[in-house]
Amino acid sequence: MIEITLPDGAIKKVSEGTTPMEIAKSISEGLARNVIAAKFNDTVVETVTPLSQDGTLTLYTWNNTEGKHAFWHSSSHVLAQALEELYPGIKLTIGPAIENGFYYDVDFGDHTISEKDFPNIEKKALEIARGKHDYKMRSVSKSDALSYYKSQDNQYKVELIENLEDGTITFCDHSSFTDLCRGGHIPNTGIIKAFKILSVAGAYWRGDENNKQLTRVYGISFPKQKELTEYLELLEEAKKRDHRKLGKELELFTFSQKVGQGLPLWLPKGAALRDRLEQFLKKAQKKAGYEMVVTPHIGQKELYVTSGHYAKYGEDSFQPIHTPKDDEEFLLKPMNCPHHCEIYNSSPYSYKDLPKRYAEFGTVYRYEQSGELHGLTRVRGFTQDDAHIFCTSDQLNEEFKNVIDLSLYVLNSLGFENFTAQVSVRDLDKPEKYIGEPENWERAEQAIINAAEEKGLDFVIEPGEAAFYGPKLDFMVKDALGRQWQLGTIQVDYNLPERFDLTYKGSDNELHRPVMIHRAPFGSLERFVAILLEHTGGNFPLWLIPDQAIVLPVSEKHEKYAQKVLNSLENHEIRALIDNRNETVGKKIREAEMKKIPFMLIVGEQEEASETISVRRHGGEDFGAISIRKFSDLVATEINSTLKSF
Amino acid sequence: MIEITLPDGAIKKVSEGTTPMEIAKSISEGLARNVIAAKFNDTVVETVTPLSQDGTLTLYTWNNTEGKHAFWHSSSHVLAQALEELYPGIKLTIGPAIENGFYYDVDFGDHTISEKDFPNIEKKALEIARGKHDYKMRSVSKSDALSYYKSQDNQYKVELIENLEDGTITFCDHSSFTDLCRGGHIPNTGIIKAFKILSVAGAYWRGDENNKQLTRVYGISFPKQKELTEYLELLEEAKKRDHRKLGKELELFTFSQKVGQGLPLWLPKGAALRDRLEQFLKKAQKKAGYEMVVTPHIGQKELYVTSGHYAKYGEDSFQPIHTPKDDEEFLLKPMNCPHHCEIYNSSPYSYKDLPKRYAEFGTVYRYEQSGELHGLTRVRGFTQDDAHIFCTSDQLNEEFKNVIDLSLYVLNSLGFENFTAQVSVRDLDKPEKYIGEPENWERAEQAIINAAEEKGLDFVIEPGEAAFYGPKLDFMVKDALGRQWQLGTIQVDYNLPERFDLTYKGSDNELHRPVMIHRAPFGSLERFVAILLEHTGGNFPLWLIPDQAIVLPVSEKHEKYAQKVLNSLENHEIRALIDNRNETVGKKIREAEMKKIPFMLIVGEQEEASETISVRRHGGEDFGAISIRKFSDLVATEINSTLKSF
Repeated sequence: MIEITLPDGAIKKVSEGTTPMEIAKSISEGLARNVIAAKFNDTVVETVTPLSQDGTLTLYTWNNTEGKHAFWHSSSHVLAQALEELYPGIKLTIGPAIENGFYYDVDFGDHTISEKDFPNIEKKALEIARGKHDYKMRSVSKSDALSYYKSQDNQYKVELIENLEDGTITFCDHSSFTDLCRGGHIPNTGIIKAFKILSVAGAYWRGDENNKQLTRVYGISFPKQKELTEYLELLEEAKKRDHRKLGKELELFTFSQKVGQGLPLWLPKGAALRDRLEQFLKKAQKKAGYEMVVTPHIGQKELYVTSGHYAKYGEDSFQPIHTPKDDEEFLLKPMNCPHHCEIYNSSPYSYKDLPKRYAEFGTVYRYEQSGELHGLTRVRGFTQDDAHIFCTSDQLNEEFKNVIDLSLYVLNSLGFENFTAQVSVRDLDKPEKYIGEPENWERAEQAIINAAEEKGLDFVIEPGEAAFYGPKLDFMVKDALGRQWQLGTIQVDYNLPERFDLTYKGSDNELHRPVMIHRAPFGSLERFVAILLEHTGGNFPLWLIPDQAIVLPVSEKHEKYAQKVLNSLENHEIRALIDNRNETVGKKIREAEMKKIPFMLIVGEQEEASETISVRRHGGEDFGAISIRKFSDLVATEINSTLKSF
Repeated sequence: MIEITLPDGAIKKVSEGTTPMEIAKSISEGLARNVIAAKFNDTVVETVTPLSQDGTLTLYTWNNTEGKHAFWHSSSHVLAQALEELYPGIKLTIGPAIENGFYYDVDFGDHTISEKDFPNIEKKALEIARGKHDYKMRSVSKSDALSYYKSQDNQYKVELIENLEDGTITFCDHSSFTDLCRGGHIPNTGIIKAFKILSVAGAYWRGDENNKQLTRVYGISFPKQKELTEYLELLEEAKKRDHRKLGKELELFTFSQKVGQGLPLWLPKGAALRDRLEQFLKKAQKKAGYEMVVTPHIGQKELYVTSGHYAKYGEDSFQPIHTPKDDEEFLLKPMNCPHHCEIYNSSPYSYKDLPKRYAEFGTVYRYEQSGELHGLTRVRGFTQDDAHIFCTSDQLNEEFKNVIDLSLYVLNSLGFENFTAQVSVRDLDKPEKYIGEPENWERAEQAIINAAEEKGLDFVIEPGEAAFYGPKLDFMVKDALGRQWQLGTIQVDYNLPERFDLTYKGSDNELHRPVMIHRAPFGSLERFVAILLEHTGGNFPLWLIPDQAIVLPVSEKHEKYAQKVLNSLENHEIRALIDNRNETVGKKIREAEMKKIPFMLIVGEQEEASETISVRRHGGEDFGAISIRKFSDLVATEINSTLKSF
């Protein structure tokens, strides 16, 4: 008999050789029907793997990330089999599960596949799935494994196997198909009820551009057809909300081949939106006691040698800038903290002067490979809403709470309601990994946790996730499509104060080190605008949206009155434009709806006579004919309902 | 007989061999007393040079730049003689006149001189001056000139003479002193009534750091003692107003060795002041139809190859930034125009869309040798209040007028009243120097001149001073110390629209090139703040100054009320601070005066009882005890008197 511990602490005594699935059945038939994957003592196992010793067993269903992983990994075997049957002679390479679905990299030889082939592949894959074939793992010797793939002339698998150690190699069989595989499958193919090929793309063997280009086939699968339908709808919606598409449609930003990839150019409407975000945060930060500073976008290499960034990131970064005589070296600044440390160092402080809170909308530059770039979410230059707080250890808890308040204020004002936090603390078993006194760490971690608790945050504590220089708290938001994004961060730092020899004079008249807090509620303006675009689909909060209203004269006759309305709106500080085209008002409304302009102000005979505007909300709500003053109140009321003052 | 034409067109017939001084005498004895230099047919001559042909003669007095130049050049001979007499065996090298005074570079051998030697040198120089020695030019053969200086063992003069052509070499004698000299002297040393040694500094022979270091002795001289006194007072005042000194005292900006020289760090008060300047200009620009954009601080090398900047400045600039794989090259942006051209190019325009006016507070980086750096006036990174207007040729005049209006608004709002303008146009004799159609140039130049005239500017036209790509207008301001500064510039550009292939669709449905205007009313924020500091001595206009008021409780007892006053001021959007130190109110007032805070608000028993503040203006004006509301009105009235809306 062996002892199997379950996650809830319950212990099952079973005979040696019992499988996870059998244990599931012993718990309940219902559970067994849903179990699709298992982990034993931190190792992924098959649901049919006989257990031969005491240990901890976790059972996974479709609702767990691990369950989905096994489901999609197993589906990639089905995809591979389908492709082999449809295109004999192709060579399979690797086919992992990914965050959403799976892919398989295939050498199709002379053959190319395209979207029109997808239905055929899906049909074949579902046919295989319906066969309810069990996944069966078996060990093979290295020589057997090599000869199997050599006989198929598959140099890719041969190369993979050559790098494996004899005795650790396993194959997985299902139906007539065999693949080199480490394991972690669902019980059988029958569980796969929906199967979709999403796209194909080029991919170099082993990601090296000197190697052959393979075809990467992306797919996704589900245990229910309904889930696939929902997923595809979500995908469709995400495509519509793609910030790159919306950014173009709303004329917010653009990229230029000549300026360089990953370097956004903010167009007037985008720059104005950025500015509103900056002014919004500046106002709140002023109330919270921050002081703005301005620092250059380069710094001597020496600055980053002092900060330690050069040793750590120098080689993978934009390379140093030399002077004509080559007697000095500068770096594009990848972060603002070293500059702010130098500002701190420009004058002496007593404990009574602390905390000092230096804030800057600091544009930083970090090298990313061109393949990694993506719209505004992965760029090479971005503006952090950065600030550094220099305080005493005693002030840490209070300062942390204040930063949480500010971060929550920012998220709430921008319509994010669904967020959690992660507190990253030390790995207590590895004290050598961290700089700074253990008692300071203890104090800082406790300060963060207390602050998070006092502020009622929904947070988890992750031991071992702290940076070497201090613990931190990250905010994660869920957007309207349910996707998670990491946004603002708050980080404690014991390292830079040391490296820059920052001091203050304590009440004991001795010099002490301040603690430093790095924080950025938006993260970066670029990434934040991208997430906000995808979250809102371009329907920004009224206070932020580029055009708040559009004046629609019903005919040429009313253009003059429309212009008068526009001027009056400007005086009420309402951002508006006018649609003077010779089109029907119906068409004008439809286009304004598409442009996501919150208010349409229709002006015709009646409105002109009564000095009113007929107000229609984006989406259809009708406010009837009201005065501009009343409309201005309406706008102010809506803005004040989302944008409280800090 | 020869014909001598005077600047006013009058013609004098005189016998051959008549000197400029004799001609001056023939006009009036008064003139002759004041004439100290002359130019004949574009060549500098002595006032005693016999004229031997027809030509145009200009006579100069101390009031002309040319007169001062001759005065100071002649004074440098006196300095050299004084030094030789005081320090026998020294070797003279070169000694030119400069903008204010003159210097002589001297090899003092083992001797060093310092400030304590200055009075002695001045005394000796004045002794020589009082001798009323005539300056007498004479030609010498190259071999005589060489042997003269070889006999003195002066290798510097020998080197200079070796590079001259035989037959062109002249010496100047006065008293017992002889110097190698091209001429251009005042009649005699007696005119020099005041003589001052200003400083000494090291200087390499021929400016080459591989050569021997000489001692540069700076001096200045005047025809009246009173003028020297005034000059020294001005110098003292300028020292007090040195923006580097004031910037430190007022905590506006700092520099860090680690960040790098020439890269200012803006401290909170300076950053806030910058921000006020930006908001001020943004507001006016919005009314003038500008749209803000935001662009990155780097661009691919390719961008600057297209713009032509790389070919022209590449080698003398910050060198290209390489990527880790070395497959891309970027440059720090030295100007914003190429980025704005790419923004223009990101969408198509019809003539109805023009003008487009893209504005950006764009931080640019330009390499300057470390020796050239000076506070905020010569830096390596600075923020231009840049904008580019893209318009049709027809719109040029109107746009130019609008830009002049904006520039004048900016200068007036900041207390500059004394300014002139220079319009730089083509050299009509060298059409090959300029890009663009001659008829466009004609039109643009006329547009600028008309605009300057219509706006009543005090301007001069300088032929041949235009850039190769277009004509321009520069504003020059005179500061409170009478010094000239070049500030804002407005430039027409036919080149970049060509290089970036910018187009718009005309009413003829064909594609046309827009014209581009570059403009920056401040020039750069750094340079502007520096000039404003020196102009105002830190007494910024009330709307701009960091701290508008300081609350001074007369004793600890009134601290609470003082704090209440401070909060109330904040609500009235008045920037104020509090001096809570345990000092007498007299001392607090004196220090607030030194800090140039416009209003001191004294609160004591009586003020607390009556809920008032006793208001004292910087400089002493007393407003008595008034309510905060009344004070707020006072502040608003003063601000509105200087800061009109655009």
